[in-house]
Amino acid sequence: MSIDLRSDTVTLPSPAMREAMYQAELGDDVYGEDPTINRLQELAAERTGKEAALFVPSGTMGNAIATLVHAQRGRTVIAGDASHIYNYEAGGPSTLGGSPLRPVPNLSDGMLDLDKLRAELTDESDTHIAPAALVCIENTHNRCGGAVLNQSQIETIANLAHAQGVAVHIDGARIFNAAIALGVPVHELARPVDSLMFCLSKGLSAPVGSMLVGNKEFIRQATRVRKLLGGGMRQAGVLAAAGIIALEQMVERLAEDHKHCKQLAQGLADFPQIEVDPERVATNILIFQLRDSQQQPLTPAKTARFLQLAGKHGVLMGSMGEKAIRAVTHYGIEAEHITSAITGIRRALIDTDIE
Amino acid sequence: MSIDLRSDTVTLPSPAMREAMYQAELGDDVYGEDPTINRLQELAAERTGKEAALFVPSGTMGNAIATLVHAQRGRTVIAGDASHIYNYEAGGPSTLGGSPLRPVPNLSDGMLDLDKLRAELTDESDTHIAPAALVCIENTHNRCGGAVLNQSQIETIANLAHAQGVAVHIDGARIFNAAIALGVPVHELARPVDSLMFCLSKGLSAPVGSMLVGNKEFIRQATRVRKLLGGGMRQAGVLAAAGIIALEQMVERLAEDHKHCKQLAQGLADFPQIEVDPERVATNILIFQLRDSQQQPLTPAKTARFLQLAGKHGVLMGSMGEKAIRAVTHYGIEAEHITSAITGIRRALIDTDIE
Amino acid sequence: MSIDLRSDTVTLPSPAMREAMYQAELGDDVYGEDPTINRLQELAAERTGKEAALFVPSGTMGNAIATLVHAQRGRTVIAGDASHIYNYEAGGPSTLGGSPLRPVPNLSDGMLDLDKLRAELTDESDTHIAPAALVCIENTHNRCGGAVLNQSQIETIANLAHAQGVAVHIDGARIFNAAIALGVPVHELARPVDSLMFCLSKGLSAPVGSMLVGNKEFIRQATRVRKLLGGGMRQAGVLAAAGIIALEQMVERLAEDHKHCKQLAQGLADFPQIEVDPERVATNILIFQLRDSQQQPLTPAKTARFLQLAGKHGVLMGSMGEKAIRAVTHYGIEAEHITSAITGIRRALIDTDIE
Amino acid sequence: MSIDLRSDTVTLPSPAMREAMYQAELGDDVYGEDPTINRLQELAAERTGKEAALFVPSGTMGNAIATLVHAQRGRTVIAGDASHIYNYEAGGPSTLGGSPLRPVPNLSDGMLDLDKLRAELTDESDTHIAPAALVCIENTHNRCGGAVLNQSQIETIANLAHAQGVAVHIDGARIFNAAIALGVPVHELARPVDSLMFCLSKGLSAPVGSMLVGNKEFIRQATRVRKLLGGGMRQAGVLAAAGIIALEQMVERLAEDHKHCKQLAQGLADFPQIEVDPERVATNILIFQLRDSQQQPLTPAKTARFLQLAGKHGVLMGSMGEKAIRAVTHYGIEAEHITSAITGIRRALIDTDIE
Repeated sequence: MSIDLRSDTVTLPSPAMREAMYQAELGDDVYGEDPTINRLQELAAERTGKEAALFVPSGTMGNAIATLVHAQRGRTVIAGDASHIYNYEAGGPSTLGGSPLRPVPNLSDGMLDLDKLRAELTDESDTHIAPAALVCIENTHNRCGGAVLNQSQIETIANLAHAQGVAVHIDGARIFNAAIALGVPVHELARPVDSLMFCLSKGLSAPVGSMLVGNKEFIRQATRVRKLLGGGMRQAGVLAAAGIIALEQMVERLAEDHKHCKQLAQGLADFPQIEVDPERVATNILIFQLRDSQQQPLTPAKTARFLQLAGKHGVLMGSMGEKAIRAVTHYGIEAEHITSAITGIRRALIDTDIE
Repeated sequence: MSIDLRSDTVTLPSPAMREAMYQAELGDDVYGEDPTINRLQELAAERTGKEAALFVPSGTMGNAIATLVHAQRGRTVIAGDASHIYNYEAGGPSTLGGSPLRPVPNLSDGMLDLDKLRAELTDESDTHIAPAALVCIENTHNRCGGAVLNQSQIETIANLAHAQGVAVHIDGARIFNAAIALGVPVHELARPVDSLMFCLSKGLSAPVGSMLVGNKEFIRQATRVRKLLGGGMRQAGVLAAAGIIALEQMVERLAEDHKHCKQLAQGLADFPQIEVDPERVATNILIFQLRDSQQQPLTPAKTARFLQLAGKHGVLMGSMGEKAIRAVTHYGIEAEHITSAITGIRRALIDTDIE
Repeated sequence: MSIDLRSDTVTLPSPAMREAMYQAELGDDVYGEDPTINRLQELAAERTGKEAALFVPSGTMGNAIATLVHAQRGRTVIAGDASHIYNYEAGGPSTLGGSPLRPVPNLSDGMLDLDKLRAELTDESDTHIAPAALVCIENTHNRCGGAVLNQSQIETIANLAHAQGVAVHIDGARIFNAAIALGVPVHELARPVDSLMFCLSKGLSAPVGSMLVGNKEFIRQATRVRKLLGGGMRQAGVLAAAGIIALEQMVERLAEDHKHCKQLAQGLADFPQIEVDPERVATNILIFQLRDSQQQPLTPAKTARFLQLAGKHGVLMGSMGEKAIRAVTHYGIEAEHITSAITGIRRALIDTDIE
Repeated sequence: MSIDLRSDTVTLPSPAMREAMYQAELGDDVYGEDPTINRLQELAAERTGKEAALFVPSGTMGNAIATLVHAQRGRTVIAGDASHIYNYEAGGPSTLGGSPLRPVPNLSDGMLDLDKLRAELTDESDTHIAPAALVCIENTHNRCGGAVLNQSQIETIANLAHAQGVAVHIDGARIFNAAIALGVPVHELARPVDSLMFCLSKGLSAPVGSMLVGNKEFIRQATRVRKLLGGGMRQAGVLAAAGIIALEQMVERLAEDHKHCKQLAQGLADFPQIEVDPERVATNILIFQLRDSQQQPLTPAKTARFLQLAGKHGVLMGSMGEKAIRAVTHYGIEAEHITSAITGIRRALIDTDIE
C-alpha cells in the first residue's frame, strides 16, 4: 500500500462520518426540506461568522457561484496569477459568466502584489475597460506551498477593493488549515470579506462537498446560480451528515497534518538533491525542487522520472508545473508514514540518474 | 404524516441503499479512482447500450452538460415548449453556453410538432440565423402528464434531426418509467439518440445523482464540462453505491407506481369537480384540473385554495401552471396511501367553496 | 434595370445626402468630438422625446445593445415569435449576453398575445426560472406585413411589463413608417417605453446607421456596450451627415411608399392566383401568397420558381418563410414602377406552371 | 488650432477620400451587392496575401470577430499583457465569447516572452484547464511605443502555436506602419498567421473602418459573426470608397509620420526633464516619461498637470498608464508642426513645477 501524498483530496471518510451518513435524516433539499443540510448550513454560517451558508458539490462550484453572483457579465474578476481560480477552474468566470479574468502577481507568501492590484481596480469611466467587480484571495495558497494569509493581509486587500466598490471573495478550500496555523478562528479571517468558500473534503475529510458563505442576499442569489449550474441536489443530507462531522470533529486535527508536513520537509532537507526550506512550511503542503550536483534544477523529464520512481518505492506525489513537486499531508497520514516516505524518496533519488 | 404526492423527488433511500453507502469502497473520482463510481458508470453504459457514462450531481447538470457539449456558442438548442429544459432549468444553454433556445410545440402526448421542428432545423446558409445543433426530447414527459414516447416516435425525431446534421439528446429523467410502461429495455429507447440523461433519484429512489451516457468522445468532453460546472466530486462513491442499488433493485418496481397512479386517477374520476382521464395516465404522473358546476375551470386562486385544504387533509400535491394540479406516485406510496389520498381529496373538495 | 422590391434596405442615398457627407464636419467620435455625430444624436433624442441618443452601425447592433443593457446574464428577454429579434438577429441576446430568449405569440396585427405575455413576466421567486428583464416590441412589424402598433397597444404592453419591473424596448427599425401611418409623432409612440432603436437606412434612405435612444443612464451604458461590440467608430460624422438629412427631409415622404404599397396590393388582388388583402396593407410592406385553381397554397418549390420568373420579368421580391412573398416599397420606387411591377408579376404568373 | 498628437485616430479624410465617397457606387452589402465594398475586400485580400477579406466598422470589431471565430466558448485566447486586445477591448473574447483571456508578458520590443507563451499552449488533457485556441500578436505594438515585429519574430510565435494546433491572429491596426518601417510588404508579415486585422483609419486616414483577412472559410465564419455583432451595414460602400484610397494612396506616406516622430523624439531628448530614447522610435508612436532633477519619475498628478499645460500651449498628447505620455504623428502633422510642438512642450515643462 502506497503512501499517498498527491493531495489531501484523497482522504477517506472517518468511521464516524460513515455512521452519520447511514443514520442521516433526509428530505428534498431543492424544496429546502433536508434537515441535515439545513443543520450543516447553520453550522457553517456560525463557524464563519456569516449570515448564511449553502452546501455545494465542490469547491470549484462554490468559487464559480461566487464569481457569477459578484460579477455580472462584462465585469472583471481579479485573482492571483498562481491562484486555483485563475489556473485550475477551466476559466469558469469567463466561460460560464462572461467575466474577464485578470491576474495580479502572487508574491511567494501568497499575498497579491498591491501596486498591481491597485491598477486593476478599474471603474466604469473608460469604455475600453471591463470594470472590476471582484477580487479573489486564496487562503491557504496552494501553489505558494500552503502559505497562510493573516487577517491583516486580508484586511489590506479588502480595504483596497471595497474603497473602489469591488467585492472580495476568499477561495478558502483550506481556510481551516490557515486558521489552525494562525491560531485564530475562521470567522476572524472571514470578517473582512464578502464571501468565502471552504471545503468539507480535503483536510476535513468529508467525502464530498464544500460550503459557500456570505450575507443572506448573497446566499439567496447563490442558491439561484447553484440551480442553474446543476448543483441543486435532492436528499443531499447524506453528504451533509459527513460535513457536520467534518466541522465538529476534524478541524483540530489539522495541526497533525501540519506537523507531519514539516517533519517531511525537515527529512528532505538532508538530501543534497532536494531544494527545500522547512521554515517555509506553514500548513500541510510542501513544494520542493530537485537539483543536480551543480545546484541546477533538474529537467522536467528527470523530474517526472523521479516521481515515477518514488511511486515504485511507495510514495505518491504530484508535480506542480514542470519542475516542482508537491507533497500534501492529510487524515490517514501518520508520523510513521512520513518516516517511510522519506526512506522511499531517498531510494528514488538514488535510482534517478542525477548527475 | 402526510401523503406526499408533490413529486417523486421526495423519495427516501431504501435500507439497501443506506447499507451500500455505508460499505462503499471509495477513491478520488477527480483522479478517476473511485471504484464504486467506476462500477456505476459501467453499469449505466451497459443498461443504456451506450459506450460510456458519467455520474453527475443532478439531472439539470446532466442536461446542461449535454447541451454545452453538443452545441457550441451561437448554435441553437431546440426543445419542446412544455419541456423541463425549456421551462425549468433557468435557461442554462443560453445563460451558461451562449446557445439560443428555441421551443417547438409539444403535442399532448409529449411528441414534438414535426412540421415546426423541421422549420427549426436550420443550417449555416443564412447569417441572420443561429444554426441548429441539438434537439432535446423529454421521455417520460413531465408537463404532458408523464406521457411516454415510444421508440418509433424517438426514431422519427432522430432521423429528421440527423438528416440535417443536428444531434439528439433525451432528457430521460424518468426514462425507466417509459421503459417499464412500454415493456421495452432502455437501450432500445436510447439507440436512436446521441446522448441520454437519466436520474438515479426520483422513481429509482437514490438520494442524489443522475447519469449522462453517450459515446466515448461525448463522455470525454462531458467530463471536461462537468469539471467546469463544478460537478467533479471527490469520494462520490458514497452516492454511486446507492445508484447501483437503484439500477439493480428499483427498476421493476416502477410498475407499482404506475398502477398506483392509475388507481388515483380512477378514484378522482368519480368526483364531478375533477376533470381527469384515467386512460391518459401512462406512468406515475397525474395532471388534473378542477371545474365548477358549469364545467368551467376554477380560478388560480381557488385552485391554490384547494391545494392548501388538501394539505390540511393530509395530501400534498403541486400546481402545474396556474390551473392544473400534479400528483406523482413513487417509492413509499402504497395502495392504501392512494385510498387515503382519495378520501383526503374528497374532503378538500367539499371544503373548497366550489359553486 | 429591375424594380427592386426585395427590401427598403436597398435604397440609395439622396443627392442631398451625398452632398452632406461630402461637406461633413468631422472629429473622432470615440473621443466624443465628432460635431456631426453629436448633432445627429441631439436631433434623434429630440424627435423621439428621449434624453439621449447613440449612433450605431446597424439596427441589429442597436437591438443587441438594448438587450445587453436591459438584461443581465441569466435574465430573460421576451420577444414576439414572429419578431426580427427572435428570428433574424442570430440569437444575439443569448449568444452574446447569456440571456435566454422566450417567444410570445404575435397576433396577425403585430400585437403580442397578452395572456401568454403575462405568464412570461416571471420574477426571482422560483430558482428553476430565469426571471424576465425585458420585453421587445416591433413597430412596424415586418413579418406581420408592416403592421402598425398604436400608442394604446404599446401602453398596454408597457404597463404590464413595468408593473412587474420588466423594461420595454421597441425595435422600431421602421418606427417612422408607423408614425406616418398613424399620423402621430414618434415621441408619442416612444413615450411608454424605456428604449427605442430606429434605422436611418431603410425608408429614411441613409446609407448606413441606426439610432438607439433612452434616458441618459441607459445611453451611458449603451455607449460602453457599443465599444465592446466594436461599434465605436472614428470620423462617423460622414454617416451622420446623411442621417441628419434622413430625419429632416425623408420622413414625410414615407407616405408615398405606403401609397405605392397599397397600389401594388390592389393591383395584385385582381389576379386569382394571388391571395392578398389590400385593406391590411398599413405601411410599405406587402406579404402575399400564391394559390392554385383549387385555392390551395403553392408548394415552396413553385413559389421559388415564381420569384425567379418575376425576376426575369424585372421584378425582384423576396420570400418570407417557405410559402409567402414579400414586396417592399421605398425611396426610388414611384407609381410608374408599381404599374410596371404589376405587369411583370402578371407575366411571371403566366409563366409559372400553376394548375 | 492645437497640434493634436493624442492619436492617429484623429486624422481627417483626404480630399481624394471625400471625392471618392461622394462618387461611390453603392448597393446593399448585407446582400453582398455593394460593388465598392467588394472592390475594397478584393484589394485588401490581395495586399495581405490572403484568400478573402471582410470590411468591419472598427478594429475592435475585427479583433472580436477573429477571437470568436478562432476560439470556441471555453477555449483560451492568449495575448500580450501590454496588448490592446488584453487591455482596451473591454474583455471582448471573455464577455462576448466565453473564452478566457490569458496574458503572456510583452518584452519591451513588443515580442512575447516565449517561455511563458510555451506554458500557455495547453491542450485538452487536463480537465482543470481551458485549452488554448488562439495567440494574438500586435504589430506595431501600441503600448510598446509603436515597436515593430519582423517576419522572423512572427514566424517564431506562429511556429510554436501551430505546433500545438493553436491559431495565430495579428492585431495589425498599424501593420502598414510595420511594413513601411521594415521595408517589407504586408503580405510577408501576414504569411505565417491565420488571420490579420488592419485599420483603414489611423495612419491610413480613412474616416471609418478596418479589414479582417484570412482564408475563405475563416471569412465565411467571420461574416456570420459580424452579422451577430451588428457589424453588417447596408450601403457601406460610402466608407469603402475612402478605404480604397487609403490603400492606394496613403501607405507610402506613413514614412513621413515615422520621420516626424523621430524628429519629435530627438527634439525632446534635449530636455533634461524628459526621459526618451530617439533610437527606440520605430514608427509613429513616441512614449516618454518626465523626471525631476533627481532623475526620479514625476508623480501621476504632476504628469497630468504637464499634459494640461502642454494643451494650453497648443500641444495635445495622451497619457499611457499613470506616468507615461504618448505622442502620435499622423496625416496632417508636418515637420513645422513638430517644431512648434517642441516649443510648446518646452513652455509646458517650464510652467510645470518640476523640482
